[in-house]
Amino acid sequence: MIFRQLFDKVSSTYTYLIASDKGREALFIDPVLGNVELYIQLLKELDLKLVKVIDTHIHADHVTAASKLRDKTQCVTIMGEHTPADAVEIKVKDEEIIKLDHLKIKALYTPGHTSDSFSFLMDNYLFSGDTLLINGTGRTDFQNGNSKDAYNSLFNRLLKLPDETLMYPAHDYKGETVSTIGKEKKFNPRLQVRNVEEYIEIMKNLNLKKPAEIDFNVASNLKLGASI
Amino acid sequence: MIFRQLFDKVSSTYTYLIASDKGREALFIDPVLGNVELYIQLLKELDLKLVKVIDTHIHADHVTAASKLRDKTQCVTIMGEHTPADAVEIKVKDEEIIKLDHLKIKALYTPGHTSDSFSFLMDNYLFSGDTLLINGTGRTDFQNGNSKDAYNSLFNRLLKLPDETLMYPAHDYKGETVSTIGKEKKFNPRLQVRNVEEYIEIMKNLNLKKPAEIDFNVASNLKLGASI
Repeated sequence: MIFRQLFDKVSSTYTYLIASDKGREALFIDPVLGNVELYIQLLKELDLKLVKVIDTHIHADHVTAASKLRDKTQCVTIMGEHTPADAVEIKVKDEEIIKLDHLKIKALYTPGHTSDSFSFLMDNYLFSGDTLLINGTGRTDFQNGNSKDAYNSLFNRLLKLPDETLMYPAHDYKGETVSTIGKEKKFNPRLQVRNVEEYIEIMKNLNLKKPAEIDFNVASNLKLGASI
Repeated sequence: MIFRQLFDKVSSTYTYLIASDKGREALFIDPVLGNVELYIQLLKELDLKLVKVIDTHIHADHVTAASKLRDKTQCVTIMGEHTPADAVEIKVKDEEIIKLDHLKIKALYTPGHTSDSFSFLMDNYLFSGDTLLINGTGRTDFQNGNSKDAYNSLFNRLLKLPDETLMYPAHDYKGETVSTIGKEKKFNPRLQVRNVEEYIEIMKNLNLKKPAEIDFNVASNLKLGASI
């Protein structure tokens, strides 16, 4: 398996490149529009053919590169079945398997940050989108976010994975690149709650600013980053 | 082996945490002063004891966390033997082995970016400092930098390592996190030269701006980041 983590400094977004050694098929998770040239160059350098692009959810803080990558490489665009983006070609269900040569990536429906949020699991690599962050969790105050759903996605799905599962989030703002389910369970301050009510209370009192350019980004991402 | 790559957004610096599973001894390469709290928290979360801190060279673009980490954890500070920093406790020679429980890290003298630049090799992980960057190489126009030395360090040391060696640089400005010696040999534009004269010519014509705050950073790093 070939694996690369890429960082977009503007939005602090992590993009993931997964590819098979033998078949040279590649897949991006959460690519950022501004970095398409880097992605195309990297695919060429690593001798890979991009076949699939996944967005974990409709992002509010950056524009996806999905449609541009589809236009440039004829890859297929994928999101979870609850996406409001009509342009998505394959909409996967909870527990559905996405194949990449011999590699298998399982879709996990983890709503809460947004109502369309999915996470993706490949062996012991969890791509947690904005559902679970390192020492944080995704905010739940826009795009049909819901703290009760988030609690369920966290405590009844992601935290049930083995402690040694590697956790690769869609963002980090402090400079960490990876964590584990075990470490998050023990130290993530948002997860040190006794019940769903306590979690809802924490999330209600975050008082976060609205992301800059959310309206433009969401409108653009509903078209997978095509010009609007 | 426990391994973490950490990113400082202000200076685009990568810091590396290496630790042994069993003995729980840990080492940082190129830690950044502004991130000490994150490092201390991470050591606690991973149940590690910091015993060593290495700077690959005297940095011009950020202040090292070496002295602050030494004060907080009683770790030992390490640099290559050509460092002008008197405060360094252990000065390693070319090919000298640094031990971390059962892990062995080999020092490689790779001058050119600066006259004190070392790289460090642990199994197939190369920490190349500013000597070799992803699709780039360290500038050679200050701190006794020398393009001929850099050419030798690159072509006669680092590029002689096996193609599959993982290359972890001290910086990346475009969002990549890791490369391999094979990929750099083939695609890094600075390395597509026929001889040392061509390399010197490229480096002579870069016309780079002087780094912001170089004078303060270098003066501070000569004291390993202690207040000046």
